Amino acid sequence: MANPVLPSSGVLSPLGLDAVRTSPGFWGDRVALNREVTIAHCQEWEEREGWIGNFRGERPRRGREFSDSEIYKLLEAMAWADHPGLPALAETVAQAQEGDGYINTRWSGSRYTDFEWGHELYCFGHLIQAGVARLRMHGEDRLTQVAVRAADHVCRRFMEGTETCGHPEIEMALVELYRVTGAERYLEMARRFVDRRGLPALADIPFGRAYYQDDMPVRQAQVFRGHVVRALYLASGVVDVAVETGDEELLKAVEAQWERTVARRTHLTGGMGSRHIDESYGEDYELPPDRAYNETCASIASIMLAHRLLLATGDVRYADLAERTLYNMLATGVALDGRSFFYANPLQVRVPAVPLEGVNHAAEGGLRSHWFDVSCCPNNIARTLASLPAYLATSSADGIQIHHHTPSEIRHGDLVVRVETGYPWDGAVTVRVLEDGEGRISLRVPAWAEDATLAHGGMVREVTPGYAVADGPWRAGDEIRLELPMTPRWTFPDRRIDALRGSAAVERGPLVYCAESVADEPPLGDVTARVAPPVEHHEDGVVELEVEASLGAGDPSGWPYGAAQDGRPSGAGVGLRLVPYHRWGNRGPATMRVWLPIL
Amino acid sequence: MANPVLPSSGVLSPLGLDAVRTSPGFWGDRVALNREVTIAHCQEWEEREGWIGNFRGERPRRGREFSDSEIYKLLEAMAWADHPGLPALAETVAQAQEGDGYINTRWSGSRYTDFEWGHELYCFGHLIQAGVARLRMHGEDRLTQVAVRAADHVCRRFMEGTETCGHPEIEMALVELYRVTGAERYLEMARRFVDRRGLPALADIPFGRAYYQDDMPVRQAQVFRGHVVRALYLASGVVDVAVETGDEELLKAVEAQWERTVARRTHLTGGMGSRHIDESYGEDYELPPDRAYNETCASIASIMLAHRLLLATGDVRYADLAERTLYNMLATGVALDGRSFFYANPLQVRVPAVPLEGVNHAAEGGLRSHWFDVSCCPNNIARTLASLPAYLATSSADGIQIHHHTPSEIRHGDLVVRVETGYPWDGAVTVRVLEDGEGRISLRVPAWAEDATLAHGGMVREVTPGYAVADGPWRAGDEIRLELPMTPRWTFPDRRIDALRGSAAVERGPLVYCAESVADEPPLGDVTARVAPPVEHHEDGVVELEVEASLGAGDPSGWPYGAAQDGRPSGAGVGLRLVPYHRWGNRGPATMRVWLPIL
Repeated sequence: MANPVLPSSGVLSPLGLDAVRTSPGFWGDRVALNREVTIAHCQEWEEREGWIGNFRGERPRRGREFSDSEIYKLLEAMAWADHPGLPALAETVAQAQEGDGYINTRWSGSRYTDFEWGHELYCFGHLIQAGVARLRMHGEDRLTQVAVRAADHVCRRFMEGTETCGHPEIEMALVELYRVTGAERYLEMARRFVDRRGLPALADIPFGRAYYQDDMPVRQAQVFRGHVVRALYLASGVVDVAVETGDEELLKAVEAQWERTVARRTHLTGGMGSRHIDESYGEDYELPPDRAYNETCASIASIMLAHRLLLATGDVRYADLAERTLYNMLATGVALDGRSFFYANPLQVRVPAVPLEGVNHAAEGGLRSHWFDVSCCPNNIARTLASLPAYLATSSADGIQIHHHTPSEIRHGDLVVRVETGYPWDGAVTVRVLEDGEGRISLRVPAWAEDATLAHGGMVREVTPGYAVADGPWRAGDEIRLELPMTPRWTFPDRRIDALRGSAAVERGPLVYCAESVADEPPLGDVTARVAPPVEHHEDGVVELEVEASLGAGDPSGWPYGAAQDGRPSGAGVGLRLVPYHRWGNRGPATMRVWLPIL
Repeated sequence: MANPVLPSSGVLSPLGLDAVRTSPGFWGDRVALNREVTIAHCQEWEEREGWIGNFRGERPRRGREFSDSEIYKLLEAMAWADHPGLPALAETVAQAQEGDGYINTRWSGSRYTDFEWGHELYCFGHLIQAGVARLRMHGEDRLTQVAVRAADHVCRRFMEGTETCGHPEIEMALVELYRVTGAERYLEMARRFVDRRGLPALADIPFGRAYYQDDMPVRQAQVFRGHVVRALYLASGVVDVAVETGDEELLKAVEAQWERTVARRTHLTGGMGSRHIDESYGEDYELPPDRAYNETCASIASIMLAHRLLLATGDVRYADLAERTLYNMLATGVALDGRSFFYANPLQVRVPAVPLEGVNHAAEGGLRSHWFDVSCCPNNIARTLASLPAYLATSSADGIQIHHHTPSEIRHGDLVVRVETGYPWDGAVTVRVLEDGEGRISLRVPAWAEDATLAHGGMVREVTPGYAVADGPWRAGDEIRLELPMTPRWTFPDRRIDALRGSAAVERGPLVYCAESVADEPPLGDVTARVAPPVEHHEDGVVELEVEASLGAGDPSGWPYGAAQDGRPSGAGVGLRLVPYHRWGNRGPATMRVWLPIL
């Protein structure tokens, strides 16, 4: 069962890479590009930066204290992608493992002297996840031995005591290793790491203990807070522990935290994180479009968490958020060339990038970067796209559930189907049965899809958001056709989101749209849109939209606050082109805005 | 001439502490409280934190790399206040000076190894400013010797070469030392530091060279950018250099930068700074009320710069911004008890502080802090309030100009007047002539003051923003009465300030008002105000206001973006109390907002 997450119980069971294969299409193309381009790109950079050389003992050691984890994420990607480069890279890593299983190129010789910032257990977690991926895709080898020895070291060193890591990650890794090996010590170790957190276990820091979720025990928290990736990695591990230990209270706690976070601390794109200084959530309704942080890794973490909650509960809202995040965050994080990346993903950019010797290290102003000093995001994208098919569909006793509609083939027992669709550009999703079989086929109808229909067995019926179901028995050649309405729609923010007052955004299907102005032409700083049905432009398989807008005239100076309330800009009316948010930043330095002023 | 800034030329000449004395009133009370409470408070904390002990050679050295500068700012405050504690503290400092004039408790032994972050020249700058204050108030003594020796060391070490400091400050200090001593090397050294900056002179850093204004020569810049205090200290020094060298082009460059900054990068309170991560301006129109940084020190720097530009040009707009910043930023930075301080000054606070063992180190959520790890702000307030009378009035060949209306006595030549006023609560300003004399008396009429009148010699006439003038000759007992309209007014933001769309604020006279809710009762998260004349409440010499508002009802959850545009909140209408922004945070943990939603 080739799955990054394989719980022993839950309402839904995942279908892994052995059961789901993507075909050419929105996600299939990205999965292929990732395998063919992005993985090699990451390895090249990690070699160039010396992070791989660290494992060979090259001195001086290079990179940040957590750079080992990038190589582990890359190894996980290679494992899911069955990449031929894995054995050699794993061998390089293995050289650095010490006799007792400890491995860390930064802290060897000064082990466990900085739990707050050292990231040692975090690095072990990524190594273990790589090992689990390899075990499930291939079986035991050098990499899995290294990972298991590391995990055993962690259990020996930390089973007793009160310590944990400033960056959660080890928890979900250990639970998954328990799932694949059956060795209960890994689950017990994960459980203890979860329970220790917030007692508190770590020192206070200027950002406060909430930064690493050590401000209170996880059972008492009301909402995700602090550093977003830390918060969501922790929550993912907590769900894993809760599921494996049958701890319903713990699961409910995470569900409630998720619910409040989605209602108050999530951007329209599914992105999470509103503060740059500590890469954190910020407070309820603090959702600035321009300073939205929305780290690419945070969106991956959100997808990981939503997937776990979906499996545990079967609740469609988790799949809905995962879809939003997949199309508007994960797909945005990497350029169409597979070689450049966004780290932060704001919803408004006022100033086009000024490329500095061709490289834009901050990945701001509409230019993605090839690499970062902290290059968590490229490697995280690589491992996520390599395992993406495992996130698309699930099974239960009565059949299969297709959560994400993209060209693919799905096998489960004697149920074998092909999904054919031009989604997200087109709303028609055909599920073609390839072999005679039995069982219910459930198709997710997204929350935004009003007036969707399902055609099946000669009948067409309206279906509402949730899951549209069709029951067998099936004969080869049978088909089900889901029609999702793809009319562009205006979306308005809750009035408590102060930063979005008087603005609206346009969505179509699962896609959030944005105005993008290459070199800021037309200028987006003083645009006002009219809330009227957008016009569709279908070009090269992509749907762009056009809305009516007026542009500001002139460039006033002087004190910008006064007794007169500004009216609409007096400049000319224009048709303002909107592109899917995930496609922005592929045309050079540009300005951009998702939320359009409408007043 | 007891003045922190004493240019050798300019349209206006400052009147110093020997010419202007504040009496009990808005500023006089604060000047007195500062002398009696705040200066001792700062000294106590600097002793407790070990920062003074560093000069005695106590080990381990304590505090940040720039902590010496706090003691120098305190010495400057003591000099202006003629504080009896100065000689002893100066003696302590003097012990640490090395034979060649170098003095720094952090970098002694590793001098000038980190120009980017070392702050050595910055510390020298503050020492020299303290020395200048002492020279002007008292004459030569131990402190002035230490300062002059330090300045001479700087000139010897840096006259040739390309180096400068990551934190501007030395520039204006050296010019002022030139002004008081006449030694041209100090001016030349300052001029060279200004010219070196932006060539570039410093290393690139993750924040970019704009952080310390080293991204381009100052003559080429269009706007203030990067770290706000650095930007404004540099600009102040540049004005000083421009004035003393007669460099009109350089002065014009700073004026243009100031103009654009005020039009696009300044909050309603006069505060500057929109980003926490690097304490920087952010981009044009990036003015979030909740994440406004608005460091107290930045407001002091802005007052320093505006004062210099006012002296050089006589342009009233500089005095207007200084007034706004004095009443809404400087007065906000320190509590009514003189012992606690804000570091950042946002315009919206959503969550009341949770006091941690009685101390709120971040000074967030409506609780000021007694001290900070980086305690620039308390000492900067102390030195500014100690010299505040020198910022109130100026002279020129034809008479005196009163820029800030507060109870005070002003002497210039044979012109001796007393200013009597309840300003900013009351708009009547009486200038009473105390001795027979000659010359024009000019009174600033703020930009917001429409329909102001000036009564003089039995005549009442309307006066417009700018300066209202009355000409002598004067007899003892003559009076001039300026009446400024104090009707509360609604103020709307420029439509390009995205974060303020659909909101308005209330001002009265020079004061910005805010809704403050102790313990968030009533809750300010979902309030809507009606734009109608506010009702005044006069209580204990303070004017509070009341506006009509509706409050939100309920606490919805779920995805906060949807097809329906929210209407006004359905909750009950209330009278919402507004307090002057500078008085907020004196009643315990609270929420607050300056900008009230009006849609």
